[in-house]
Amino acid sequence: MAFVNENYFKLSPSYLFAEISRRVDAFKKANPQKSVVRCGIGDVTEPLPQACIEALHKAVDEMAARETFRGYGPDHGYDFLRHAIAEEYRARGMSIEDDEIFVSDGSKCDCANFLDILGTGNRILMPDPVYPVYADTNVMAGNTDVSFLDGTLENGFVPAPPKEKPADLIYLCFPNNPTGAVATREQLAAWVDYARRNNALILFDAAYEAFIRTPGIPHSIFEIPGAETCAVEMRSFSKNGGFTGLRCGFCVVPKAAMGRRKDGKAEAIHPLWSRRQSTKFNGVSYPVQRAAEAIYSAKGKAQVSGLTDFYMENARLLGSALKANGWEFIGGVDAPYLWVKCIAGKTSWDMFSYLLEQAGVVTTPGSGFGAKGEGYFRLSVFNSRANIEDVCSRFADLAKA
Amino acid sequence: MAFVNENYFKLSPSYLFAEISRRVDAFKKANPQKSVVRCGIGDVTEPLPQACIEALHKAVDEMAARETFRGYGPDHGYDFLRHAIAEEYRARGMSIEDDEIFVSDGSKCDCANFLDILGTGNRILMPDPVYPVYADTNVMAGNTDVSFLDGTLENGFVPAPPKEKPADLIYLCFPNNPTGAVATREQLAAWVDYARRNNALILFDAAYEAFIRTPGIPHSIFEIPGAETCAVEMRSFSKNGGFTGLRCGFCVVPKAAMGRRKDGKAEAIHPLWSRRQSTKFNGVSYPVQRAAEAIYSAKGKAQVSGLTDFYMENARLLGSALKANGWEFIGGVDAPYLWVKCIAGKTSWDMFSYLLEQAGVVTTPGSGFGAKGEGYFRLSVFNSRANIEDVCSRFADLAKA
Repeated sequence: MAFVNENYFKLSPSYLFAEISRRVDAFKKANPQKSVVRCGIGDVTEPLPQACIEALHKAVDEMAARETFRGYGPDHGYDFLRHAIAEEYRARGMSIEDDEIFVSDGSKCDCANFLDILGTGNRILMPDPVYPVYADTNVMAGNTDVSFLDGTLENGFVPAPPKEKPADLIYLCFPNNPTGAVATREQLAAWVDYARRNNALILFDAAYEAFIRTPGIPHSIFEIPGAETCAVEMRSFSKNGGFTGLRCGFCVVPKAAMGRRKDGKAEAIHPLWSRRQSTKFNGVSYPVQRAAEAIYSAKGKAQVSGLTDFYMENARLLGSALKANGWEFIGGVDAPYLWVKCIAGKTSWDMFSYLLEQAGVVTTPGSGFGAKGEGYFRLSVFNSRANIEDVCSRFADLAKA
Repeated sequence: MAFVNENYFKLSPSYLFAEISRRVDAFKKANPQKSVVRCGIGDVTEPLPQACIEALHKAVDEMAARETFRGYGPDHGYDFLRHAIAEEYRARGMSIEDDEIFVSDGSKCDCANFLDILGTGNRILMPDPVYPVYADTNVMAGNTDVSFLDGTLENGFVPAPPKEKPADLIYLCFPNNPTGAVATREQLAAWVDYARRNNALILFDAAYEAFIRTPGIPHSIFEIPGAETCAVEMRSFSKNGGFTGLRCGFCVVPKAAMGRRKDGKAEAIHPLWSRRQSTKFNGVSYPVQRAAEAIYSAKGKAQVSGLTDFYMENARLLGSALKANGWEFIGGVDAPYLWVKCIAGKTSWDMFSYLLEQAGVVTTPGSGFGAKGEGYFRLSVFNSRANIEDVCSRFADLAKA
């Protein structure tokens, strides 16, 4: 009988969203007359930008005629898309080459699959709270030397590099999911400096960069000089273009980024990722790549700005409501999440139940993102305006009551 | 510095198609007046079925309006598609449940990713010649106990299970790439019997099942009683619906299929694959899943039959041309590949050069698929009718010369 991967039995059950559903269903059954608004999920609600819709229709028509039909695409993405992406980096002063862009079907896949090309024995650092996929995929890969860096209100949920502890692999995500925190140039530079001193590799998740509004906040790790030797960056079209249902993202792997062999010899990461993707992946759907390309057109950029502005207005409304109630929070300025401190004495799940029962608002308990998420909850701005206004007035009613 | 996966350095360079390109380019440069026809690549050439085109346009329009927009889909595929796929199995008498279907972005990814949920120490069996991904992904995963079963003209490139040697994991692909061989019910039953006696797991690649024309040849491993305890099956919409550029396939993982823990305890494979996909994958593009669903409609089925009939007529034409030349081959009856014996004394690459230089026809050297592929070449039927007729007349001219 085939041996199975024993590491899977070390995973904690993935119960967060299942438990939320269970509790919401129970509440609705017990209170059929009360309405419930969901404000916890990180999935977009607004339709795709028109430029993407047009590009999709056009690409589908191409697939309908022999002369323009496209079969297998390049494993690493079509040149038209890799070029458009790299040009955007170059326009912002970063020297990224077209063939350092690897188009994928999403950031979740990229950050999970990246461990394929890494070996055993790595010392891994990640923040707490954290996107559960970083931790779970390390458990699956059998990586046991995983340390967590405490996020706190005091450090603004941007932990500084540790003074003593060296690491080989570091997960960073800014703007952050779940906290909505962003890192300043100085904070990111400290991480790049730490990585270079320790010869560590940074996996930088920039899925939410399109929501940055504060001037000077870096949109990419590659805005920090030297990062190209010690970092790879994952980005996604899920949240800027609303591609959560279309599936497209990319990974930037600079040719200068290095790992090492067991004997200490340095090895470039780029050819390893290239081989991984060629062997285990067959590229992204052609119409979807045309839709992603459209995001870089003048019309596409304007429409994406419209979308992210819409969600950030939701963030402003939610933030005002929280402030009016005297609730402490971070995020919502350069990120589509608000990270809210629970009312004194309440755990994340207490607060979840309180908001569900008293206001009919569904949130995400912070403890679902790690031990340091306990005592917080996450609000998502991905919602219709009507729902957000409804949540704000429910919060106001709660304060009055 | 992050340790890299040492196993990647044990991979042989993936040079087959690169070397073909290099030689074709050199020939064209030296002989600019000669025309060249490619007849080696397994990529479809005909446009998508109209039912799929209509489903794609409709789904794209849904993505353009808030009321019908779809964000994140279920990680394992939409119910509408899982149900349509499972119904097709049930209609053919196999008791596959909807939630035993896992929709993916292609069979290459599935057969590569499946090793994620398997452990170390497995004894692995695969035929030679073989689809290179099976072998390469095992090298990447550090699996060193890999045995090859010799395919020969005598066994029709359908090796029988070994008498003595037990295995834990077996790769089978029928209709076969590259040889075009198919397994009879008795041959598959012998493999299922071997797997059950040895408690082994079969990874069955049925990507080409739509090309089977001979009555009685199984389309699925699950036509063999008991296979549900010892097999998973990968299928693809790439070759039946021409989805090589759209990207969609699926994996059938019966709940009864078992692996084992190190202590010998049996463990179901289904929850492990479910967790793997939920954690590392985010589902397939919504419009693409609607296109896949359309393949199961009455119109879609008729159009897919039209497509596969078209390619199988190409196979018939190529087969007649080979016979007229007295060239020995198998395949092309129930599969879109013809596997041709080289002219006596010629290696696969000798024959490649001979056909390129004398006839301007590009083929795929059999040695690219393993040691036992030496002395053969692969012809693909995925081409326009005009190109296939051109190849046939070039072969005829070669015989006259």
